[in-house]
Amino acid sequence: MPIVLYELAGANPAVKFSPYCWRIRMALAHKELAVRSVAWHFVDKEMIAFSGQSKVPVVVDGERTISDSWAIAEYLEDAYRDRPSLFGGAIGRGEAFFVNGWVDSTIQPMLSTLIVRDVLDAVAPDDRAYFRSSREARFGRTLEEVQAGRETRVLELRRLLSPVRRMLRQQDYFGGLHPSYADYILFGSLQWARCTSRFQLLEADDPVNDWFNRVGGLFDGLGASAPRA
Amino acid sequence: MPIVLYELAGANPAVKFSPYCWRIRMALAHKELAVRSVAWHFVDKEMIAFSGQSKVPVVVDGERTISDSWAIAEYLEDAYRDRPSLFGGAIGRGEAFFVNGWVDSTIQPMLSTLIVRDVLDAVAPDDRAYFRSSREARFGRTLEEVQAGRETRVLELRRLLSPVRRMLRQQDYFGGLHPSYADYILFGSLQWARCTSRFQLLEADDPVNDWFNRVGGLFDGLGASAPRA
Repeated sequence: MPIVLYELAGANPAVKFSPYCWRIRMALAHKELAVRSVAWHFVDKEMIAFSGQSKVPVVVDGERTISDSWAIAEYLEDAYRDRPSLFGGAIGRGEAFFVNGWVDSTIQPMLSTLIVRDVLDAVAPDDRAYFRSSREARFGRTLEEVQAGRETRVLELRRLLSPVRRMLRQQDYFGGLHPSYADYILFGSLQWARCTSRFQLLEADDPVNDWFNRVGGLFDGLGASAPRA
Repeated sequence: MPIVLYELAGANPAVKFSPYCWRIRMALAHKELAVRSVAWHFVDKEMIAFSGQSKVPVVVDGERTISDSWAIAEYLEDAYRDRPSLFGGAIGRGEAFFVNGWVDSTIQPMLSTLIVRDVLDAVAPDDRAYFRSSREARFGRTLEEVQAGRETRVLELRRLLSPVRRMLRQQDYFGGLHPSYADYILFGSLQWARCTSRFQLLEADDPVNDWFNRVGGLFDGLGASAPRA
């Protein structure tokens, strides 16, 4: 029985763009697990009420229901120990959790300010009022105001990525020679941008671009071939 | 035969304060290896000329000479596989290298601007002219100008540490339950400040403080009991 993944879908239901859902789509592919994707929209709170909370990703694996991308990754690692490892052991898991916090507290918030108005155009029609009001409440400004001036502010995102660039001087992935969950954490954020916006985040010759394309090419191009809004 | 570690010493030769040397002192203790510390000063370039470069830490282990803290950590991990692991495997090693780049490109440069004038007072008399001129050339300003306004700029350092704070909500160390090399990377920077400056970097109730004290207490208080300038 395939694992069921509830993931955020856009106006085009084939477009899946949540950064946190992308972490899990990649983790499931890494674990070579069959998946049945269920398209979810922000208004569908009751559809996932059984999970005891109101956000995706939600994973249902037989009797088990798990929400929160980090908790799901840990569940997959522990439940499928015979499959390729996401963390490579206890230390690798701990460090991946640091990467998770680094992306969530620095990259994701900065990136939001660069594309959030574009994301509004990608979300389903019934989700738009909710998306605008919830995000504008969070930012304390209109989405248009938040996104304004991004041509100069994008430099700050590029600067925030400098530790990744430094790492890529010496290795292809966060985990060294091979991809692992830490890659999928950052990949999710940049894939969110790729699927919802045409705004150029990175310079063409940025090594982070090469890394993003490498990760997007994994699993028969799961990320790179995903539909864009 | 103990491993020889050339490490930067201050005006008081018992005071060892280089952030990169501290990474290696902690790594050697983690590996339960006997060490003979050789006090080195910036003017002693010829003392380590045999290493083919001009910076500490330098480690001599029998026939082998290794410089650069990251290269030394990798050497220790590979040469002493039967000892407690610094990385916990390939993925953990790769992620630790990301942490290395994160500290080197964000925390260490910011921290420098807060304490570099204090560090001048800690270095040996013969090193002072070199330290001032090399650092002032790097910053393009006097050390006094660099350090000015730190009472407000320290907030930026605290903000940069937010991914660590987020990690510490859920685990005690970068590697989860137990200390590993990634901890020693960040520890080195904060220990550099502890050994050279009385400026208060962190608020008393900051969880990063608790972590720093935990790491400082390891190996019979190797870090916590180290002399300060």
